Amino acid sequence: MEIRMRPIGVVHSPYKKPEDAPPQGGETVSRIEIFEEFKEGLRDLEGFSHLHIIYWLHRSKGYSLLVRTPWDTRLHGVFATRSPRRPNPIGYAVVELLAVEGKVLVVRGLDAIEGTPVLDVKPYFSGIDAKPHARAGWFEEIETREKGDRKRAP
Amino acid sequence: MEIRMRPIGVVHSPYKKPEDAPPQGGETVSRIEIFEEFKEGLRDLEGFSHLHIIYWLHRSKGYSLLVRTPWDTRLHGVFATRSPRRPNPIGYAVVELLAVEGKVLVVRGLDAIEGTPVLDVKPYFSGIDAKPHARAGWFEEIETREKGDRKRAP
Repeated sequence: MEIRMRPIGVVHSPYKKPEDAPPQGGETVSRIEIFEEFKEGLRDLEGFSHLHIIYWLHRSKGYSLLVRTPWDTRLHGVFATRSPRRPNPIGYAVVELLAVEGKVLVVRGLDAIEGTPVLDVKPYFSGIDAKPHARAGWFEEIETREKGDRKRAP
Repeated sequence: MEIRMRPIGVVHSPYKKPEDAPPQGGETVSRIEIFEEFKEGLRDLEGFSHLHIIYWLHRSKGYSLLVRTPWDTRLHGVFATRSPRRPNPIGYAVVELLAVEGKVLVVRGLDAIEGTPVLDVKPYFSGIDAKPHARAGWFEEIETREKGDRKRAP
């Protein structure tokens, strides 16, 4: 089974190359240009403070089932990471929506580079999407260890 | 530009038809079977309490830029809703991970029907993904109005 998609828009970002982008979006402001033919689909979007952005990691070549991340030296299963080297290189970010300017979404926190094809935009509903107490396995272990290290440091 | 993907797994759900599934996943327990060739990518996933599941709404035919939802009678831009009638019919849900049984993820809260192709699984990090105070425009207006109506009711 093969699945085909096409971009609904494109990212304009101060990040020009994959190595420019932080592992997660940080505070950078980007612009998502939705193509004219899909513009009508943006009606009522301006009332949302946050959006899910699903995009295509067009610079990602190939994938690995076990990957290293910037956070530690161990290998993790790719599905237990946000690595771009995925079987389907789909990017995902929660962004803050700062403004809707015609067919352009001005957003904060998107870790996608200039020219990234956008596949979908969805509204963020805190009731179903926000899990503030979620546990994050291997990543939390590192955070806990680092806090311990800082406490032990002179 | 055409983008091609292939399923990494398949959903086994008590929901057999689109009309069986609630608008959002509710409390149902489903099983996500990851195909054997991608199984190694699950290493360390069991430490996460929640996952992002990205899937293909294979029963969705065509799209509309303006859609009605179960919540009210007005038309909204499709990108301001979670309607399946999207230009790229990508489904998205945050689920609770109950267990990893070999290559099967047992999850709660997936609003996908039996046989749904899964495109990606990502770990949920509360620090970047949880926005408990997100505002939800047109949807919140309905909730507020309904609360008002209940107060006014005898």
